[in-house]
Amino acid sequence: MGQLERPAGLHRFRNNDKAIAIGNTFWEETARNGLSGIVANLAEGGYLQTQEGHRFLNFSCCSYLDFDTHPGIIQGAIRALEKYGVMDHCISRIRIQIPALLELENRLSSLFRANVITAISASAATAGVLPLLASGHFSGNRKPVMVFDKNAHFSMNLYKPVCGDETEVLTSPHNDMNYLEDVCRKYEHVAYVCDGTYSMGGHAPVEDLLMLQDKYGMFIYFDDSHSLSIMGEKGEGYIRSSIPGDLNELTIIVATLNKAYGSSGGCIMFGPKGRDVALLLERFGGPLAWSQPMNVAAIGASLAAADIHDSPELKRRQDKLKRHIDLFDARVASEQQGNGFPIKLVSASNDKVMAAGQHLYENGFYVSPVFFPIVPRDQAGLRVMLRAGVEESEILRLSQLLLDFGLN
Amino acid sequence: MGQLERPAGLHRFRNNDKAIAIGNTFWEETARNGLSGIVANLAEGGYLQTQEGHRFLNFSCCSYLDFDTHPGIIQGAIRALEKYGVMDHCISRIRIQIPALLELENRLSSLFRANVITAISASAATAGVLPLLASGHFSGNRKPVMVFDKNAHFSMNLYKPVCGDETEVLTSPHNDMNYLEDVCRKYEHVAYVCDGTYSMGGHAPVEDLLMLQDKYGMFIYFDDSHSLSIMGEKGEGYIRSSIPGDLNELTIIVATLNKAYGSSGGCIMFGPKGRDVALLLERFGGPLAWSQPMNVAAIGASLAAADIHDSPELKRRQDKLKRHIDLFDARVASEQQGNGFPIKLVSASNDKVMAAGQHLYENGFYVSPVFFPIVPRDQAGLRVMLRAGVEESEILRLSQLLLDFGLN
Repeated sequence: MGQLERPAGLHRFRNNDKAIAIGNTFWEETARNGLSGIVANLAEGGYLQTQEGHRFLNFSCCSYLDFDTHPGIIQGAIRALEKYGVMDHCISRIRIQIPALLELENRLSSLFRANVITAISASAATAGVLPLLASGHFSGNRKPVMVFDKNAHFSMNLYKPVCGDETEVLTSPHNDMNYLEDVCRKYEHVAYVCDGTYSMGGHAPVEDLLMLQDKYGMFIYFDDSHSLSIMGEKGEGYIRSSIPGDLNELTIIVATLNKAYGSSGGCIMFGPKGRDVALLLERFGGPLAWSQPMNVAAIGASLAAADIHDSPELKRRQDKLKRHIDLFDARVASEQQGNGFPIKLVSASNDKVMAAGQHLYENGFYVSPVFFPIVPRDQAGLRVMLRAGVEESEILRLSQLLLDFGLN
Repeated sequence: MGQLERPAGLHRFRNNDKAIAIGNTFWEETARNGLSGIVANLAEGGYLQTQEGHRFLNFSCCSYLDFDTHPGIIQGAIRALEKYGVMDHCISRIRIQIPALLELENRLSSLFRANVITAISASAATAGVLPLLASGHFSGNRKPVMVFDKNAHFSMNLYKPVCGDETEVLTSPHNDMNYLEDVCRKYEHVAYVCDGTYSMGGHAPVEDLLMLQDKYGMFIYFDDSHSLSIMGEKGEGYIRSSIPGDLNELTIIVATLNKAYGSSGGCIMFGPKGRDVALLLERFGGPLAWSQPMNVAAIGASLAAADIHDSPELKRRQDKLKRHIDLFDARVASEQQGNGFPIKLVSASNDKVMAAGQHLYENGFYVSPVFFPIVPRDQAGLRVMLRAGVEESEILRLSQLLLDFGLN
């Protein structure tokens, strides 16, 4: 438990110098090879097309169900704009709000079987929730020791210093339940902050975490942006669908509406005992209080997406995504093979990964190469994000190209 | 300069316990008197109407030019949705983006005579810019001592602990140029963080600040959200229009597109030497890098708003707002009388301010009462935010109601 000691001075939580030195090397190399800075329009069949006429499928897109181009969702946005005649009548929603936002929150609450508050993005939701979690306002005014998973997304880590000004903040090894249980034994109140599903593949061990919650009263904050819509009967996501019955007062789930859900915005799910949570967030939840709410187009798109999530169309798309994941997993090896999620990190040697990315792009597929220095040299690879709305033949062709390149 | 000493331990920058105790007393009282939690739709003539049928004008709305309901802006949103058929094809814009976002940034760059990058909100822009400013990445890798104005908006203060993990962070008395010059004498590199125009009235002494910049090389970060569109030949705002020629490499201006501009989103202005700024922000600017860009509806609305800003219609609205400000200032005293900005804090005794707010609301005007404990007892009052798009007779009626209530 050596990590429990707090280092003094600056850089307890972050160091831009180091992060930018590492990141710039990565991005320069990516840009030099033409795999960033791409400008393209959507064409038919889910393809993108550059102004030079290059057509390709984006397999680094988080719209796993291809709802982003669903005509019903776009029409929902247009309908709301025509009905309300405004993008945002700018005033804090604590004071005055239009009924549409409440209508959406009611729809999402019933869809996800939780109390739901919206935000303009998952990261705005995070900015609102984490500081209040740190100061103990979601746990009866008892400040928890906060534990961030080492692999928690940047959008959560940004608020480590903010939380660290309200309470003690620790970083745990990734998915390390032994570490976490040690912290729970040592401190009376603990809040764990993690992704439900990780953007580089993998997921939180939700059953083990709920067991720790049950045993020690540990609070859990999940960002489940990468699994909303693709899992659960109504698209409530991996974490929510793993919790039977109501959410308890020790669990908050944040998720974006920009990825598989298919619209724009973010949502915060909490349990029925959480009326205070709603009030706290609306009054003191940073961007949730003083910044704009979701704009009317995003509200309209999200309402239309809610209709789709409440219809048989959702399961058809989920099944199609599942079939594509299975097709891919049956052909291409990855650490995530068989885990049921669409993000697959296909290993490639550090000196080969960029050429592989270029080869795929030339052959009509965009996937993100990840390599040293953003990951250790032996963990380089291509991040493939599977989608429902493409032809099976394209999944097979993508798999074959990866195999041909010796990546498997 | 006693404040230069850094206090040890927690609560160097924030204390939710204190802030929430104070804020809740304020909000409970506001809610009890029916001046928060209002749900209403926009009706004709800029009025709002509750489901119970109460009609009123919102004079706490930041849409100072009434562009929020401009049919051309709403049509711009709809046109973009029809053209692109997507709200957001979810992938980091560093990798792939649609041309519409670049088109908007080019339009805003020429309109505001600056390099412009967009964000989903001004607060997302702030989250992206401030940590990089703290680590010296906008000032040749020399870390500045950061000075936040005491009255800087919450959306900036949220990032004090984040900046405080990268460099030394101080808080200056409001608009105190002597304090600031002392800091400039003491430290080689200083970055000052302030609002261009403050949400509770008043503004930054831009000429004095530019003088300090000239003399000491001080970096200045302005959030000028409350004056974009209402000032400047093309609506570039109070700060930008106060700076002749190009922005230099020591100035960044952030502003929302949600207020007078009339759409949804945020923008960051910087100078022509700042190509590195754009790259840094897109790669390492937090939400600007990993979160969603403005959605297509917001982009379309903002493009249409740019057309309006580039037409004679802008000046007509600006002039109308100016006339309403003058009409009000000629009748009602406030600290901001004659300053040319639309936000006026009309004093009222702490025990009278709520009744005044209720009386106005019953008579068809919503204004925000501000009172102890969010301001000292002797600084209570009504925050009136004037607008261009209402009848002059309504400005006169509002003024008369304030005078009748003995507020002047």
